[in-house]
Amino acid sequence: MTLLQRIESPADLKKLSPDQFPQICEEIREQIVSVISNVGGHLASNLGVVELTVTLHYLLQTPEDLIVWDTGNQAYAHKLLTGRQARFQTIRQFGGLSGFCKREESVYDTFNAGHAGTGVSAAVGFVEARAQLKQSHKIVCVVGDGALTSGLTLEGLQQAGDSQKDLLVILNDNQMSISKNVGALSAYLNRTITGKFCTRLKAETDYILETIPQIGQPVKRMANRAQELAKGLLLPGLLFEELGFRYIGPIDGHNFEHLLPTMENVLKLNGPTLLHVVTKKGLGYEPAMKNPVWFHASAPFDLDTGKPRNKATKPSYSAVAVKTLIQLAREDERIVAITAAMCEGTGLTAFENVFPDRLYDVGIAEQHAVTFAAGMAAQGMRPVIPIYSTFLQRAYDQVVHDVATQNLPVTFCIDRGGLVAEDGTTHHGAFDFAYLRHMPNMVVMAPKDENELQHMIKSCISYNVPTAVRYPRGSSLGVELDPVPDVLPMGKGELLREGKDVALVAIGVTVHQAMVAAERLEHEGISAAVMNARFVKPLDGELIATVAKQVKCLLIIEESSRMGGFGSAVLEFLSDEGMTQVRTKCMGLPDWFIEQGPQELLREKYGLTADGIYEQTKQLLTHVSAQPVFL
Amino acid sequence: MTLLQRIESPADLKKLSPDQFPQICEEIREQIVSVISNVGGHLASNLGVVELTVTLHYLLQTPEDLIVWDTGNQAYAHKLLTGRQARFQTIRQFGGLSGFCKREESVYDTFNAGHAGTGVSAAVGFVEARAQLKQSHKIVCVVGDGALTSGLTLEGLQQAGDSQKDLLVILNDNQMSISKNVGALSAYLNRTITGKFCTRLKAETDYILETIPQIGQPVKRMANRAQELAKGLLLPGLLFEELGFRYIGPIDGHNFEHLLPTMENVLKLNGPTLLHVVTKKGLGYEPAMKNPVWFHASAPFDLDTGKPRNKATKPSYSAVAVKTLIQLAREDERIVAITAAMCEGTGLTAFENVFPDRLYDVGIAEQHAVTFAAGMAAQGMRPVIPIYSTFLQRAYDQVVHDVATQNLPVTFCIDRGGLVAEDGTTHHGAFDFAYLRHMPNMVVMAPKDENELQHMIKSCISYNVPTAVRYPRGSSLGVELDPVPDVLPMGKGELLREGKDVALVAIGVTVHQAMVAAERLEHEGISAAVMNARFVKPLDGELIATVAKQVKCLLIIEESSRMGGFGSAVLEFLSDEGMTQVRTKCMGLPDWFIEQGPQELLREKYGLTADGIYEQTKQLLTHVSAQPVFL
Repeated sequence: MTLLQRIESPADLKKLSPDQFPQICEEIREQIVSVISNVGGHLASNLGVVELTVTLHYLLQTPEDLIVWDTGNQAYAHKLLTGRQARFQTIRQFGGLSGFCKREESVYDTFNAGHAGTGVSAAVGFVEARAQLKQSHKIVCVVGDGALTSGLTLEGLQQAGDSQKDLLVILNDNQMSISKNVGALSAYLNRTITGKFCTRLKAETDYILETIPQIGQPVKRMANRAQELAKGLLLPGLLFEELGFRYIGPIDGHNFEHLLPTMENVLKLNGPTLLHVVTKKGLGYEPAMKNPVWFHASAPFDLDTGKPRNKATKPSYSAVAVKTLIQLAREDERIVAITAAMCEGTGLTAFENVFPDRLYDVGIAEQHAVTFAAGMAAQGMRPVIPIYSTFLQRAYDQVVHDVATQNLPVTFCIDRGGLVAEDGTTHHGAFDFAYLRHMPNMVVMAPKDENELQHMIKSCISYNVPTAVRYPRGSSLGVELDPVPDVLPMGKGELLREGKDVALVAIGVTVHQAMVAAERLEHEGISAAVMNARFVKPLDGELIATVAKQVKCLLIIEESSRMGGFGSAVLEFLSDEGMTQVRTKCMGLPDWFIEQGPQELLREKYGLTADGIYEQTKQLLTHVSAQPVFL
Repeated sequence: MTLLQRIESPADLKKLSPDQFPQICEEIREQIVSVISNVGGHLASNLGVVELTVTLHYLLQTPEDLIVWDTGNQAYAHKLLTGRQARFQTIRQFGGLSGFCKREESVYDTFNAGHAGTGVSAAVGFVEARAQLKQSHKIVCVVGDGALTSGLTLEGLQQAGDSQKDLLVILNDNQMSISKNVGALSAYLNRTITGKFCTRLKAETDYILETIPQIGQPVKRMANRAQELAKGLLLPGLLFEELGFRYIGPIDGHNFEHLLPTMENVLKLNGPTLLHVVTKKGLGYEPAMKNPVWFHASAPFDLDTGKPRNKATKPSYSAVAVKTLIQLAREDERIVAITAAMCEGTGLTAFENVFPDRLYDVGIAEQHAVTFAAGMAAQGMRPVIPIYSTFLQRAYDQVVHDVATQNLPVTFCIDRGGLVAEDGTTHHGAFDFAYLRHMPNMVVMAPKDENELQHMIKSCISYNVPTAVRYPRGSSLGVELDPVPDVLPMGKGELLREGKDVALVAIGVTVHQAMVAAERLEHEGISAAVMNARFVKPLDGELIATVAKQVKCLLIIEESSRMGGFGSAVLEFLSDEGMTQVRTKCMGLPDWFIEQGPQELLREKYGLTADGIYEQTKQLLTHVSAQPVFL
């Protein structure tokens, strides 16, 4: 039995002696690397916070004391220490443990997340709830330096600093968000760590904190002294101090001799405190230390070499999108690409390699990315923002207020539209059609395959209005790409198949499935038309009307929320035109948050496959013939 | 002819001598106060930036040089100096000048706004566009201290500070956002202004800047020296310096002897610079100086007394909502109210008076407001967020990701839902039904009158899930309030009138109009049922189905975007149920951004009146009888 196996809850951790902690950490790392090499996951960030996690659960009285893990993708060690070892191998699998914190999974998980930057705000909520309920537990928020720079975190810090209530924010500084961190605050932190006054200061702080004899007044006096000292020295934390925080650090996040006494003392301090902990992403697994960007969220890999196990044979949609962007950017100097800390995920690294001066990584700051793009567009540029569907949610108002109202030619390449698999609930791109469709001036497209994707991106640049093209996570279909991307006529879909019994009106990835279903239906003597809608907006009403007049019923199919989505656009059109004689059925994502699981499994579960479409068509036709159609 | 009348463009301003500027400013203030007393508007903020505006247009080469006015509600003087005097009296009126900046209105308006905090991001966009296009004009962004604290602004500052390109950010610090500014950054600025080192520092800075002999190296050397000096003195701007900005100030924003030489020199500096200008909201009009909060966005007022001209006789929806909240909070200690700098606008001042410890004003930080609320709810509280519909857009992702995914009992009291009048495009609450409806777990309601509003707020608190109740700007109907608010059965509408020809399925303010229309139709022998839907979600499908079976057609009516809104929810239901035999027509806001104008005028224009409903019903019935219904 390993040491780790003896820990069923943090109470067991408290029974160990601190000199056993390095061994625990090693076992935790082994466990994480072994499982994640099989199932994929956020490896590097998790390996960086093992000592910190052990320290927190050793010193705090969880679950009464509350730990908020910002983003929640660094909580694997936390899971292993809080009763979830037996299920750990199921992490990120269908029906298994989440890769993030989930309140429904454990009482030790205090707040669900997935998007970066919510932790401090939630923790400030905990702080004020504690005040209202006259409780006295401790509240700790662990936030990475990447998420620290998001506007939401900065808003949260302001309230915390202003209220002066007890809150410990631990800045887990690995000098990275997902890729290398950017922005002035990040530069500031770097100076903090590398500055010449830093060593001296650390020594002073350590000394002061380690010699604090007891809690209460003496601590406060000493801390004030530390503060004074610090200011005299131009303390690196002055920025935080000006925001109302007491700043402590930076300290080595892998050294228990620093971590334990500092944390013990810091936890006794009153008021808002920021403890700056320097950690190394991927620590303990050589390949992850060498390539923390790939191992930020990795696919399954070979344990010995760190190489990905499966190499996709077809290009990803992301790769095709960026390849097209590069091609277009060669001919049009107005094109620039903007990313919110997602250079790798969106494939933009390839763009950066060719046009380093035309790639802007603004950090985890989706709001700013969009308004920044609007500013560039207002001055004649053609900014393109490749962004995950779920993260664009953060910039909903900027898309409406800064891009759409001014009808500016900003292009959104919406990656990870639809089901995304293992990251689950917070990462599915379920709502984009629904939240973009009601914005005036927006053009919203989704391609049936990667060849159409390149034409759509070309179209986006040409239309001279706000445009969005939405494509799925993962491999493309493997069709041949036309050598030159073309402009598609705006608002025009295409009829891929004629039919007289039913029309399958599909968009995006579902078009291919609809074609397969139509062929299968044909074998049973059912004549199914298939329309590739291409545009959620403007909708090709003309083609829909033509098709609707020829069939008994329409099956409308999208891998997106049924509520308010593409299907609902078609229904609105039919209602406006008074074409209520045709029976309709909308297929799409249901009105609940979708769980994690492989894309194919989820598609099956929610019927968004050729089989599902086939079944729904049969059912629909049965209904139509069972009931008098026009009654 | 006044001096002001001689200024047709900034070129004319340059012909004046600076000693004529005070007179120009007086004339500008007179003009603003006189017009706004008639039409209402953002008086106080505009009176505060008159000298600053004159200084900028005198020293810059606009429109080649670009000024971005953050939020844009302080640009009245800017409008008067840039060729819009003749039309100034039409400001905020239907067909008149906008109360904000509009690119379509003038080449001097560089970026449209209305929501706070977009200016710096847009200006950074301008900066990078200038770099890409190899241009060399100056770029200046004027941002208030309220908007400075929004996350979006802080994100923008980070990129500006990091890139080190030329950009002047002018911090217009009046120590207020809309009401008194809050948060640690605001406290920091206050210390900056009032600190004892401030006077000394100002003197030093002034001296240094006024003696700069020429641009180039000497300036840089002097500026570096200023920086060093400053650090030695604990310069108040260190926070901005750490973010990569050169900080200058604070200076008096009403004194041309400070403004002109400082600005002239500051405009010669390279790199990102922040000029801290202290101004007084409402300067030059006594009532506005005394009550800058009321005069932030005032109704028409008496010029002599500063008193509002018309006093509403019926309570506003906002007032009823807050009255109900107070009533409920007396009995339920878990209830707290959260606002994003909108205490007055939402009526929460009344709540604060009774429960000062249960009101949280987080500043212009809608994102944080929502995640903060989610944090409190996760700890057992019942947070309520009264917020304007258009500003909740800023927190779309927080509503989805932090509230809805965790199914937390946070209540959104969505004020200014639908048409809001003079603030126009950026302020209409057009999209709320559409953007909330597709979020799983959300309950979305709208009351037919203020009595139902109080029941709905009570229901929100009782349901123990995420809830939103949306009500309009302005006076309520004046109906009697039941003494005690009741819980409404979730997802149940009510049939207000039976009918057999047509059913008017209405929600919110349109219910009353539908009732009036139904009576008028009755006189013509048309039997119209009227359903008050109450719930956009969960939809009362049972009642809709019952009604739909009894009539030939449904007219669905909402004061919200037709795309993806309530009407589209009804269509989805009918499609799911296979009830396509009933003819439908959806009335609501069209697919373009709505202009400014009086609520009643806009309602008439878009047909959302009893007359409009009457007309649409007649048309619909004509269609239905002209065509064979079931074909």
